[in-house]
Amino acid sequence: MEAAVRELTVELGERAYPIWIGSGLLSRTGELFAERGFPEKSPVLLVTDAAVAHLYAETVETSLRASGYEVQRAVVTVGEASKSLSVFDGLIEAALEAGLDRKSTVIALGGGVVGDLAGFVAATYMRGVRFVQMPTTILAHDSSVGGKVAVNHRLAKNIIGAFHQPEFVLYDLDTLLTLPPREVRAGLSEVIKHGLIWNADFVRWFDEHAERLLGLDPEALGYALYEGCKVKSIVVSQDERENDLRAILNLGHTIGHALEAVAGYGELLHGEAIAIGMAGAARLAVRFGYDPAIAAETERIFRKFGLPVRIPADINPDAVMKAMMHDKKFKEGQMVFIVPTSIGSVEIRQDVPSDWVREIVEQLREGAGEA
Amino acid sequence: MEAAVRELTVELGERAYPIWIGSGLLSRTGELFAERGFPEKSPVLLVTDAAVAHLYAETVETSLRASGYEVQRAVVTVGEASKSLSVFDGLIEAALEAGLDRKSTVIALGGGVVGDLAGFVAATYMRGVRFVQMPTTILAHDSSVGGKVAVNHRLAKNIIGAFHQPEFVLYDLDTLLTLPPREVRAGLSEVIKHGLIWNADFVRWFDEHAERLLGLDPEALGYALYEGCKVKSIVVSQDERENDLRAILNLGHTIGHALEAVAGYGELLHGEAIAIGMAGAARLAVRFGYDPAIAAETERIFRKFGLPVRIPADINPDAVMKAMMHDKKFKEGQMVFIVPTSIGSVEIRQDVPSDWVREIVEQLREGAGEA
Repeated sequence: MEAAVRELTVELGERAYPIWIGSGLLSRTGELFAERGFPEKSPVLLVTDAAVAHLYAETVETSLRASGYEVQRAVVTVGEASKSLSVFDGLIEAALEAGLDRKSTVIALGGGVVGDLAGFVAATYMRGVRFVQMPTTILAHDSSVGGKVAVNHRLAKNIIGAFHQPEFVLYDLDTLLTLPPREVRAGLSEVIKHGLIWNADFVRWFDEHAERLLGLDPEALGYALYEGCKVKSIVVSQDERENDLRAILNLGHTIGHALEAVAGYGELLHGEAIAIGMAGAARLAVRFGYDPAIAAETERIFRKFGLPVRIPADINPDAVMKAMMHDKKFKEGQMVFIVPTSIGSVEIRQDVPSDWVREIVEQLREGAGEA
Repeated sequence: MEAAVRELTVELGERAYPIWIGSGLLSRTGELFAERGFPEKSPVLLVTDAAVAHLYAETVETSLRASGYEVQRAVVTVGEASKSLSVFDGLIEAALEAGLDRKSTVIALGGGVVGDLAGFVAATYMRGVRFVQMPTTILAHDSSVGGKVAVNHRLAKNIIGAFHQPEFVLYDLDTLLTLPPREVRAGLSEVIKHGLIWNADFVRWFDEHAERLLGLDPEALGYALYEGCKVKSIVVSQDERENDLRAILNLGHTIGHALEAVAGYGELLHGEAIAIGMAGAARLAVRFGYDPAIAAETERIFRKFGLPVRIPADINPDAVMKAMMHDKKFKEGQMVFIVPTSIGSVEIRQDVPSDWVREIVEQLREGAGEA
């Protein structure tokens, strides 16, 4: 079954760009390049990873060549380790060897790692060339919109980066059909997040369509990604460089990042870690006096999607607290958290006592004796 | 003798910034940081090189500390080799270790290498932090204005970079007094360039004040740097990202870059190479039918400043032509050159026959039998 092609625009003035979500889109790449006036004489670099390359790279390349574009493929190893300066260096070399010029385009075909890495190449090669995002995971609906690109340093994640908006985001739902179920669930966690911070109706719809979403029904998935990208794009268009509002996108991320760091990256998937983090943020809301139903409802929905809402028993709460203190969201003794005020809205709190956080981290541990 | 402090503004809307040129300015760093509202709680990273560090770093640091700023020094090796990804990596580490946050500032204290390198750190650390340029060479009056920052790849110079404008440029003339005479002359070559592309009156003044300029008279030097920076800032404010007009700043650079590459970097100083390149561009002007006096006058002025206008005899013209073909300013058989139309104005020509260029490269060789 084919899903309708949905389109939305990230409103950023001169840098505004469309997001297209639908089936069979990768084979239309060349056509879209031509329509948007990308110059044929400037070679294209297609950056992808070893898992995605054999599934989808040829479709994109064939389409580009049919429209008269020259394209070179650069394949990186699957996983976060590819977001390094040395892999970046290799991609710059690939861009030089492919003869990319100032009017060339770098395409990211893959998940968040490929998007962040290829985006940093596009942001810096010859001081910036065109960039196109083609996410192939559900999770990447988040990172592919908004222009944050980066690589890691051995001492800190995402510390070397830029804001570099894509020319467009092409989201081919067909690429999601091959995702393992655990990644589907974890990806959906980031989609629900966009409902929880901004849109109660969408949370309700999401809750009611759990079965179709987990079954990768293209129409349901297309709608959910559209709504998720919409929230992201509204927030980004109001605060491109994260001076204030954009911080709300970090709901669940303070605890989530700490859990990922302590568990070792890859043990807990990002979407799983932030599901636990959002459960924690909902408990903070209750502590601040908001409706206790926020916490109960948040946990119920995550459980329905098979997502964790408890910290694995082998993770040490001290280590989690320590990791949070290193997080850049921590300032001078008090902690900064995005806290729900109801289902579908949040506030940025700079005044969260760290002993409340500690208390909630303890409560969230598996087997902590609470229902 | 103290020179007056001159100020000009690079008009770039939200990113507009001042350039201050005068004596004794480094010791006012802290005061300027405070006046401009740089937050005291955010540490500063001072990037400099081993030659400059022992002369001027302490003055800057003392001034910052007196105003309540925490500052860490990062010293790189003198020379172009420091503009590498591995030195960049080390500076990111230094920034992390110094605890730089999103509101921190990176200062470049040095010549063009330090400015480009530290600027790329500022452009990418946490996706961009404040940047301050403190040039300590005459040549750097050019690179410190306009926001072009970059590091080299082993296959290409300046290929990894960004546009990242400084918060301000602080040009302390006292730092120029220790420059070796050859670097003074080479630096003045880039200053004259700004006159040749934009301002005939300034060329005339420059010509008349050769002795005072070569003698590093602070008042003359301050005025010349002010006029040079003014041309640069006018051009940059009209075309920040080099879509068209900014290309005129490349007068003399097509041949100049090729000469530097063929001679081996460091053999010919950049300012020397572009002096020869500007002599070549002036001959092209004559070939296009402009007043022959342009070429004679250009060469006379450069000679007066002790700058070369001939290609050293041991440089092979074939190699120079080949290097130009690799330059990004070369497109499809025809060559792009900035060509003078009179003293003080230029045009961008996309239609320069490569055999004219070849002919002029031959003529320019030392001992080519021409007066």
